[in-house]
Amino acid sequence: MAGDSAVGRRAGKATMAGRLAADLGLALVGADLPLSRVAPLHAADASCLSFLADRRYRSRLMDTKAGAVILRQADADAAPCAVLIADNPELAFARAAAVLHPRAAAAAGIHPTAVVDDSASVDGAASIGPFCVLEAGVTVAAGVEMGPHCCIGAGTSIGPDTRLVAHIVVCAGAAIGARVLLHPGAVIGREGFGFARDGERWVRIPQVGGVRLGDDVEIGANTTVDRGAIEDTVIADGVKIDNLVQIGHNVVIGANTAMAACSGISGSTRIGARCTVAGAVGMAGHLHIADDVHFTGMAMVTRSQSEAGVYSSGIPAMPNADWRRTIGRLRRLESLERRVQRVEEALASRKTGGAEPSPD
Amino acid sequence: MAGDSAVGRRAGKATMAGRLAADLGLALVGADLPLSRVAPLHAADASCLSFLADRRYRSRLMDTKAGAVILRQADADAAPCAVLIADNPELAFARAAAVLHPRAAAAAGIHPTAVVDDSASVDGAASIGPFCVLEAGVTVAAGVEMGPHCCIGAGTSIGPDTRLVAHIVVCAGAAIGARVLLHPGAVIGREGFGFARDGERWVRIPQVGGVRLGDDVEIGANTTVDRGAIEDTVIADGVKIDNLVQIGHNVVIGANTAMAACSGISGSTRIGARCTVAGAVGMAGHLHIADDVHFTGMAMVTRSQSEAGVYSSGIPAMPNADWRRTIGRLRRLESLERRVQRVEEALASRKTGGAEPSPD
Amino acid sequence: MAGDSAVGRRAGKATMAGRLAADLGLALVGADLPLSRVAPLHAADASCLSFLADRRYRSRLMDTKAGAVILRQADADAAPCAVLIADNPELAFARAAAVLHPRAAAAAGIHPTAVVDDSASVDGAASIGPFCVLEAGVTVAAGVEMGPHCCIGAGTSIGPDTRLVAHIVVCAGAAIGARVLLHPGAVIGREGFGFARDGERWVRIPQVGGVRLGDDVEIGANTTVDRGAIEDTVIADGVKIDNLVQIGHNVVIGANTAMAACSGISGSTRIGARCTVAGAVGMAGHLHIADDVHFTGMAMVTRSQSEAGVYSSGIPAMPNADWRRTIGRLRRLESLERRVQRVEEALASRKTGGAEPSPD
Repeated sequence: MAGDSAVGRRAGKATMAGRLAADLGLALVGADLPLSRVAPLHAADASCLSFLADRRYRSRLMDTKAGAVILRQADADAAPCAVLIADNPELAFARAAAVLHPRAAAAAGIHPTAVVDDSASVDGAASIGPFCVLEAGVTVAAGVEMGPHCCIGAGTSIGPDTRLVAHIVVCAGAAIGARVLLHPGAVIGREGFGFARDGERWVRIPQVGGVRLGDDVEIGANTTVDRGAIEDTVIADGVKIDNLVQIGHNVVIGANTAMAACSGISGSTRIGARCTVAGAVGMAGHLHIADDVHFTGMAMVTRSQSEAGVYSSGIPAMPNADWRRTIGRLRRLESLERRVQRVEEALASRKTGGAEPSPD
Repeated sequence: MAGDSAVGRRAGKATMAGRLAADLGLALVGADLPLSRVAPLHAADASCLSFLADRRYRSRLMDTKAGAVILRQADADAAPCAVLIADNPELAFARAAAVLHPRAAAAAGIHPTAVVDDSASVDGAASIGPFCVLEAGVTVAAGVEMGPHCCIGAGTSIGPDTRLVAHIVVCAGAAIGARVLLHPGAVIGREGFGFARDGERWVRIPQVGGVRLGDDVEIGANTTVDRGAIEDTVIADGVKIDNLVQIGHNVVIGANTAMAACSGISGSTRIGARCTVAGAVGMAGHLHIADDVHFTGMAMVTRSQSEAGVYSSGIPAMPNADWRRTIGRLRRLESLERRVQRVEEALASRKTGGAEPSPD
Repeated sequence: MAGDSAVGRRAGKATMAGRLAADLGLALVGADLPLSRVAPLHAADASCLSFLADRRYRSRLMDTKAGAVILRQADADAAPCAVLIADNPELAFARAAAVLHPRAAAAAGIHPTAVVDDSASVDGAASIGPFCVLEAGVTVAAGVEMGPHCCIGAGTSIGPDTRLVAHIVVCAGAAIGARVLLHPGAVIGREGFGFARDGERWVRIPQVGGVRLGDDVEIGANTTVDRGAIEDTVIADGVKIDNLVQIGHNVVIGANTAMAACSGISGSTRIGARCTVAGAVGMAGHLHIADDVHFTGMAMVTRSQSEAGVYSSGIPAMPNADWRRTIGRLRRLESLERRVQRVEEALASRKTGGAEPSPD
């Protein structure tokens, strides 16, 4: 399906290491072998390109059977094979892997089973897969790849070279940028969780805001991004969001912020640029998070953070018996504080000849 | 798609403020202007209706360019424009927004691409979207709007005016009430997580119970509600559930309870009426939660709660270094308790001329 | 839809208790009645088979109106009806329920609306539902039941008797075993969350690994299992995963491990065999978890665990006021430690005639 690269990325025809080095602007030191695929150091053979980014794995480097390895100059001496020197081996590897495992692009055109409204505009160089539904006024730019079973609501615009892998729902009026990647099951722009109380009952507040995804945004599988209640929900350029994440209405996420899976951002919270949010983080609503803030996994974010830095919470798992004792001690903290106070008073009274503290 | 209101809710033709006030039973004070859309106080122009519910925003009220504002009598004096007086401004605004931004109803009828079993019964005033699949014996009442790619399992009944936005799976035998709203990706009635052990292996226990959603229920995007194991899973009237929530088999949720995103309710737990469950709350199984219980975000609910009230847990995020020290102190609590005890013994022994405590 | 058994599991024709006992290898004590369905002890009538596994429910047993009950020999005396004696009543009940509520198998064949690539190979005894999309080189074995709206990426193989209920996306090149059960909305093999930094921007690292699901694996509704980055993501035989779970790239899960809903496993973590992971557990990446490790609900797993056992974390919910005080005491722990130290010093100085501690 569109953007489904697994088989497309199976080894293509081999590329010479020297050619690869030239294309990536790297220095090749050693034999100019043909390379046909990428592999980890420990599993590579002579046809494989591998990489070393973390020096802790230097021992694996020494033992590798890879034909060539991308690494830093400082690690080159330890390599038993040809090396491609890079300041940022991981980045160079990402680019090399894209060369060795080119993605199979979907053929342009609209699949005959797709239901496309007469008023929708689909560029001739876009690909619309089987059973897609494009409602009135949808615009699809050149290079878009839309896999099977995507529903695009009325008036939505999709920018160039954006991939919708499969099974994606984009509700009406959404604005999707260029080179966006939407993974299967993502739901963009549903009406958010906004209600007014009418006695015991809840009355839905119409959600009239929109949702905008900038360029180079990525939204994970089964992740949900709600439209705004009255203003827009905004995901800025370069934001990467993993699977099963909830983005509430009116949330604004700054450029190049990355969020790992299972996190939830409550309504109207604003997150800065270049932040990282690890897995299963929860954020309350109406918070302001500064740029360059980093939350570790399962952090419970209940306050705005105006300072860049790393923030954390949560108790790491321990053997169940230890945990039960720890919880018990937490419950006894009040009495422990009282005991300490009594002891302090007793010591003070000694000096002043006062009375002993009464028992608890 | 069905129920996809974003564009449907774009400004329709203007409504006079006086007409709106009359329809909503509110008093209009000031000029009877035409209003064409809703907007927040700070972004409104003369064609906009806005509202003030939280008095902390009175300063925004004073500066607003809105044509009219819904607010309480007590705030009317601060408005620079026409006002509509309401006891519950948020509720009045919800209704006004529905007037100014009417939802575009889907046309009645069955899309030619839908696959509808001969034994299914679809009311003539219902709308079935492209690529829907209705299995044997499904009944669909008048006013139902079903968007693209919905799968409705055999024997399921769907009540009047219920909206299935798109991409919804309702497994066989489900009973869906009236005016229900199911958001994209919701899965209703899948076989729950029930297994018997057979040595090391797990053997599935057939899940023969059903699932019932009452009237005015809302189920969020990509939320999953499992069918009962042997009795039914029941979501009572007026319950509102946000995105990415898991409702286990045999769970019973009382009327007008609301649950925010990313929460999970384990099997056979019963939640009362009028409860609120904030985001990312986890509940163990087989609990009984009373009416009017409120859980704050990320609460870990391991015990039944028979008393109405607010319940919480979890440590708010703090700078990582502080958090590491806090975890360290938690680990030292045991020795701290011992130290306090020794000190107490030392003081007691002073009185009785006893020995000093031995060092740790 | 395929595997949607609810209505299929409605009472079929009655089965005699004696016949059932013989089929399951159980001893029948009492009248050989016709049984037509399963029911819980308290809701059963004379046509129902029930069971007692947990002795705490013996009182319900004494009051049951069931025609027959599966139970242990030790509980037989308390039954007012016929009994089927089993060492593992829950397991026997699971098998009996499957007999009394047989699943309606889907008819073999490819639905005319399905889009199947010419190079795909579908066994004549497999069932492919409406609007399914099978890409190039897909192989589907005998007995497979694929419900509506499934997308199967190029080169994927699906083993015999595997059920894809509906709305499932399997990305290209996946290997799915025999008797696997994939629930609606599951996404198997999407490209995982792997990026290299390029200054402030994130550059996707092509995910060229695969994903393998062993035999008898179950994947819950809207659960996501990412493909490997460079090696494979592997879910071993008999693993059961609940709804809304995230499995990151390169994760390896050992045989017969079970994971409850809303959990998230970060990339490259390896979990042993026979583990249980309760709901909403979060695991960091690159961990090694031994066999027979059990995590309780909402545990925050940040370290590898080499020892079998039960591990926990998290603070159980309490009344909000108590919780606020507890958090306050946690914040005061540092000063409490200092106070205890001062008291200890004061006592020591008494012995040595030293000075009083200075106030805080």
